[in-house]
Amino acid sequence: MTDVALIGFLQYLDLIGVLFNAIVGAVIARNARLDPLGLGVLAMMSGLGGGLIRDTILQAGPPLALIDWRYFTTAIAGAFIVTLVHIEGRWWERIYIPIDALAVGCWAAAGAAKTIGLGHGWLPAILMGTITAVGGSFVRDMVLRQIPSILGGNTLYATWAMVAAAITVVGARLGYTAAGSVVATLVGAGLVLLSRYKHWALPQ
Amino acid sequence: MTDVALIGFLQYLDLIGVLFNAIVGAVIARNARLDPLGLGVLAMMSGLGGGLIRDTILQAGPPLALIDWRYFTTAIAGAFIVTLVHIEGRWWERIYIPIDALAVGCWAAAGAAKTIGLGHGWLPAILMGTITAVGGSFVRDMVLRQIPSILGGNTLYATWAMVAAAITVVGARLGYTAAGSVVATLVGAGLVLLSRYKHWALPQ
Amino acid sequence: MTDVALIGFLQYLDLIGVLFNAIVGAVIARNARLDPLGLGVLAMMSGLGGGLIRDTILQAGPPLALIDWRYFTTAIAGAFIVTLVHIEGRWWERIYIPIDALAVGCWAAAGAAKTIGLGHGWLPAILMGTITAVGGSFVRDMVLRQIPSILGGNTLYATWAMVAAAITVVGARLGYTAAGSVVATLVGAGLVLLSRYKHWALPQ
Repeated sequence: MTDVALIGFLQYLDLIGVLFNAIVGAVIARNARLDPLGLGVLAMMSGLGGGLIRDTILQAGPPLALIDWRYFTTAIAGAFIVTLVHIEGRWWERIYIPIDALAVGCWAAAGAAKTIGLGHGWLPAILMGTITAVGGSFVRDMVLRQIPSILGGNTLYATWAMVAAAITVVGARLGYTAAGSVVATLVGAGLVLLSRYKHWALPQ
Repeated sequence: MTDVALIGFLQYLDLIGVLFNAIVGAVIARNARLDPLGLGVLAMMSGLGGGLIRDTILQAGPPLALIDWRYFTTAIAGAFIVTLVHIEGRWWERIYIPIDALAVGCWAAAGAAKTIGLGHGWLPAILMGTITAVGGSFVRDMVLRQIPSILGGNTLYATWAMVAAAITVVGARLGYTAAGSVVATLVGAGLVLLSRYKHWALPQ
Repeated sequence: MTDVALIGFLQYLDLIGVLFNAIVGAVIARNARLDPLGLGVLAMMSGLGGGLIRDTILQAGPPLALIDWRYFTTAIAGAFIVTLVHIEGRWWERIYIPIDALAVGCWAAAGAAKTIGLGHGWLPAILMGTITAVGGSFVRDMVLRQIPSILGGNTLYATWAMVAAAITVVGARLGYTAAGSVVATLVGAGLVLLSRYKHWALPQ
């Protein structure tokens, strides 16, 4: 594939991540018995929060979610799906787990690539990649008065997001931004899936 | 009225909204037994938070609250009023309820008009209008460890803020930004008052 | 000392403040039984949060913490120190209390000086100085589901940060930005120490 095709592929993955994370946020809102508007807000926070925080910190123009209408539309679509369809059970987990894993990897890669592209160093790039990947769920947990699960839970999302961001940085330094992002996405997703099935946790 | 007069009228309404919401924040802080500084912080968050979040996300220059000294001064005045005057009872509710309703409508219109004016589409404009109107109370609730009332409470503030923002967008598209903002403010305020007296709520 | 030497001195104090506040954040994370990643996140929030919020609101380019690699490195070093060394007891308090006090003063001065330098007025400068000084601990407390201690606790950090910021503003207006910042830092630190030993509190 050419670089253009790779980047197009990653953009679709990015939007699919928005859709699935918006659905997760909406499901959590429904379980917390929020009203339809609260459900919409939580869907948008989960799906768009990480990128919004990233773009607000980077200060390189208005957030992507404001400029590109597909982001909002996708997040709102996620909220509607949850209000219309009964999202639960085995079939949902079978779809959700791998796509959620891909979204973590893809968001980490996108955040790191954007930060590198703006001329920042590798340390900010890894941080912004991680914030992109976990920022939405962090904010969502805070709003629901929970200590964000990435801080002390057993998911290793943030750790693997850092790894995916680091791979992206290395790829960009070697001149292969697009290919590096794809490799980062796949490695990040693979590690998320592995640690889920193996019940890995950080030592306390 | 000319457009200039209309915009001037809305700016005063905007500041009156800051004053009243700062008072609300300060009253809540006093009831939560915060110290005078906490009271000032909550007053500023309630009165200026929505616009601050809007301007930080839009990234079109420093927030209005930093550039225009009247915003800070008004919010601080609200905090002082609460420390000096005993704000409570029927007369306060009689003044507060209509002005609070006008502030929701006016802030939603101001946020949507600013977003449209920066060249963004109707979807971001409605979102930023809503954030302007409810952002301050959202942050205030979070700081006090409450699930933000707009997410699951019975107030329909956010819903009517969206309606007011949408009216503003339509007005701006038709070439009547100022008149549309005034209509949006009045319709938004009317709907807030109606839903308060009729005890409307979103279905769960 | 020349102005250049004074500013260099304040920059080192700034970084020492980052280090010590990152250590405080990491100690709190360890006591809250967060995993190593949560410890790192809390260390970064404590050490860098105030400046990050300041720079995001000021919108005068990407945050200092992104541009200057020493900030991240210092915050991460603070996290590592806590995981490797047993930070507790009298010797830690003897070092920590004065340096924490200096950091409050120094951060308030730095935030106020930067805001003034961007051409904003004295009111925003005092606010941004205060946010720089207490923003990190504010966010850290919120993440851990506590009402931020600066809102109702007995520490007068925010009050003395406002005083230090005000001194910086006066100094800058008189043409002595660097000297004013040093005086502000020392006065702010002195007041923090005094109110700690005298058990001063704001009246409720």
